[in-house]
Amino acid sequence: MDSPRVANLAALLRALREGPLSRTQLATRCGITKAAVSGLVTELSERGLVRAAGVLTGGNGRPSQLVELCGASAHGLALSIEADRFAAVVVDLNGRVIAEEAESADVPALGLHRGMDELALLAKRVLPSDGSRPVGVTISVPGLVDSAAAVLRFAPTLRWRDAEIADLMAARLQLPADAIAVDNEANLGAIGESVAGAGVGVRELFYLSGGIGVGAGLISAGSVLRGARGFAGEVGHVAVDPNGDQCPCGRAGCLETKAGLAAVLRAAAPPGDLLHDPALGVDGRVALLRERVLRGDRRAATAVLELGVALGIALSTVVDVLDPDVVILGGYFAELGAWLVEPIRIELAARPLGTAARCRVEPSPLGTSAPLRGAAHLATERLFADPTLIPLVEASV
Amino acid sequence: MDSPRVANLAALLRALREGPLSRTQLATRCGITKAAVSGLVTELSERGLVRAAGVLTGGNGRPSQLVELCGASAHGLALSIEADRFAAVVVDLNGRVIAEEAESADVPALGLHRGMDELALLAKRVLPSDGSRPVGVTISVPGLVDSAAAVLRFAPTLRWRDAEIADLMAARLQLPADAIAVDNEANLGAIGESVAGAGVGVRELFYLSGGIGVGAGLISAGSVLRGARGFAGEVGHVAVDPNGDQCPCGRAGCLETKAGLAAVLRAAAPPGDLLHDPALGVDGRVALLRERVLRGDRRAATAVLELGVALGIALSTVVDVLDPDVVILGGYFAELGAWLVEPIRIELAARPLGTAARCRVEPSPLGTSAPLRGAAHLATERLFADPTLIPLVEASV
Repeated sequence: MDSPRVANLAALLRALREGPLSRTQLATRCGITKAAVSGLVTELSERGLVRAAGVLTGGNGRPSQLVELCGASAHGLALSIEADRFAAVVVDLNGRVIAEEAESADVPALGLHRGMDELALLAKRVLPSDGSRPVGVTISVPGLVDSAAAVLRFAPTLRWRDAEIADLMAARLQLPADAIAVDNEANLGAIGESVAGAGVGVRELFYLSGGIGVGAGLISAGSVLRGARGFAGEVGHVAVDPNGDQCPCGRAGCLETKAGLAAVLRAAAPPGDLLHDPALGVDGRVALLRERVLRGDRRAATAVLELGVALGIALSTVVDVLDPDVVILGGYFAELGAWLVEPIRIELAARPLGTAARCRVEPSPLGTSAPLRGAAHLATERLFADPTLIPLVEASV
Repeated sequence: MDSPRVANLAALLRALREGPLSRTQLATRCGITKAAVSGLVTELSERGLVRAAGVLTGGNGRPSQLVELCGASAHGLALSIEADRFAAVVVDLNGRVIAEEAESADVPALGLHRGMDELALLAKRVLPSDGSRPVGVTISVPGLVDSAAAVLRFAPTLRWRDAEIADLMAARLQLPADAIAVDNEANLGAIGESVAGAGVGVRELFYLSGGIGVGAGLISAGSVLRGARGFAGEVGHVAVDPNGDQCPCGRAGCLETKAGLAAVLRAAAPPGDLLHDPALGVDGRVALLRERVLRGDRRAATAVLELGVALGIALSTVVDVLDPDVVILGGYFAELGAWLVEPIRIELAARPLGTAARCRVEPSPLGTSAPLRGAAHLATERLFADPTLIPLVEASV
C-alpha cells in the first residue's frame, strides 16, 4: 500500500482530477519518467479508473493521446447521523453528487442497533447499481470520535456511547471495516468547506458548527487538526458570559448556553410559541426564526444579535490562539449568517494588537450539507491515496 | 535545493544523527540504492560533514566500514532578545552546546539599532574560531513575528515595531539574510521542549510561556502551528476572571492581568517589597518568590495558587479546543511548576466529557532556556534539510 508503485499510481490519478493530460504532461507533473508513466497508465486503465480522451495537438511536439479519469467508475458514500435525521450522499470520482436522500428519524429513540439498521437501508437505497464500484464510506456523527479506533465515544444528542459505528455498518453493508471511516460532523464540515465551500485554497480554517450543541473543526497547514485523542474542536464550553445561565457542565455562561439552538430559540420567542415545536425539526425552526428576523420581529432580531455577540466573544479567543485565515459559520449559524457576521467582526476588531481583525468571517455557502460534502470527499479520497483498492478489470486505454 | 540528490544527501545526514551506520544500513534506512549511497557519502565527506568510524562486524555479512556525522564540522547559533537581557548559544551538529553566554541589558532603552549592535558583539564572542563552519542563526524575540518576512511586527516589552531583525543581524555578522531566522520565543520554546524537554516524542503539544506577558507555542502533528500570519499562540487575552482587573486591551480579567509576572508579584507582596525591585531582574524576582513559597509565606503561596487557578481556567479552554497530549509550563511558570500543576489539573478535571483530564501537565524541564534550545535546533536544522549549504572541502572517508 505504501510501495513506490502505489504512490506513483496515486500521483497520476490525483493529477488527472484537474482534467485530461497526456503521458508527457503526467510525467512532468508527477516527476515520473515517461516510460514508467506508460506502464502505470496501463495499470490504471486495467483497473477501469482512466481512459483515452482525444488527442492533444499544437505546441512543437507530435500530437499526443490524452488520458482522463473515469469519474463514473467508482463512488464514495457519505452518511450522516443527526439527532432527528439520517442522510446519505453518493459521489463519483469527480466529486459529483450522483444520488442523495435524507429521512427524518427519532434517533435517540431508535437506539444504536435499530438506528444503524435504518441508516443501512437508506444507504442501500442510494447506492448505484450501474457497475460503479464502492471506494469507501464515511459516516458523520455529532460527537466525540476516537478516530484511531473508529469508535464514537460519546454523542450527547443521540445518547450513544462507545458505539462501534464502523463495525456495525460494515456488517450491514458487507464491506470490510477498514473501508468505513467515522468522523465528527464539525471536522467533516471543515473538510467540506475546504473542498467546496468558503475554505477552498485556505490553509488555516476554523469551522464553527451550530446545532443543538456547538462544535468546531480546525484545519491547519491544510490538514484537520484532531489533537492527541481526536477530540480537538470542543468549543461549547468556552466562557462567554460569567453572569449567564448555568451550563450542565457546572460552570456559567458557556458558549453552548448562549449559542446552542434551544437557547437561541428560547431567547427569540416565549414558551409555547410555534418556534419551540419539535415537529418542525431543526431546519424548520431555524427557517421560521430567519423569517421572523427578516420580517422585523424585535425579539427574534435581538436574540440573533446576542447570538452574534456570544459567538464573537468565543471566536476572539479562538482567533487569538489559532490565527486562522477564515472563520466559517456552519450548521444553523449559516442560515443566520447575514446577521451574525457583523457583531462577530466587531468583537474581533476590538482585540488587542489588531491581529484578529484581519481574519475573514463568512457564513458557510454549503450550510448544513457541509459535513456530508466533507464525508463524501474523504470516502473517495481513499482511492486517490491507493488506486489498487479497485481491483483489475478488463479494459484498456 | 529541492533536487532529489539534495533530498538524498539530507536523508543520509539525518539518519547519521542517531549514530554511526554502514553504507548498507544507510541504504536500507533511507530507501536509496547502495550504489547511490556510496557516491552520496563521498560527497558528504568532501563537504566535511561525515567521516569513517570503525568497522561493523558480526551478523552474517562481511565486515563493513561505518560512517559517522562530524558533529564539530559546523555549528548553529541561537540568539535571544528579552526585555532585560541578551543571550547566545552555539551548538554543534549533534546538538551539543559548545558555547553560551548571556548579558544583562536594558533593551527598550538601547533601542533597535544599538540593541542589535550589542547582540552582534555577544554573538561574535561566542562563535567558534576552530574551523567549525556556520550553518544558520535563529533569533528568539518576545513578540509577533511575520515569519514569511522575518520581521518582528511588535514586541511590547521591547517597544520595537516592524523591526527587520534578520537583515540587521545579517549585516552585522556578514552572513546572507536567508541564513538568519527570527521566531517568537514561545514557538521556539515549544520546539525546544519537543527536541529536548517534556515534549520529546509528542505530536500534540501546548507550551505556555510566562514572562512579563504570557505567550504560547503550539505543536500539532509534529509541526509548529503558526496560523495564517504567524501570530498563533496569543493567549494573553483569554478571559479568566470577569470581575478581575482591567486589562490594557479594554476588557477585564484577561489571563495576562492574572498571570503576567508583574500581576503575580503584586499579589505576592505589598508595594515597596524587595520582590518588586527591578534590579533583581526577572529571574531574581522569581527565585525570591519561589523561596518565599518554600518558606511558607502565606501571601506568596496564595498568589501562586491563584496563578495556578487562572492558568487552569485559560488552559481548560485551550485543551478543549486543541486536545494536546501535554501542556508544558515554560518561562517563569516552570520555576513555580511544583505549585501550579495541581490547581491546573483540578480545573482540567472539572471539564465536561472528561476529555481534558487526560491531558498531561508538566513544568518545563528546560525552564527559561527552552526558547534558546529550540532556536539552536532550528539553526542547525537548515543543514539537515540541505547539506549543500556547507561547501566542498578536501577530506575523504
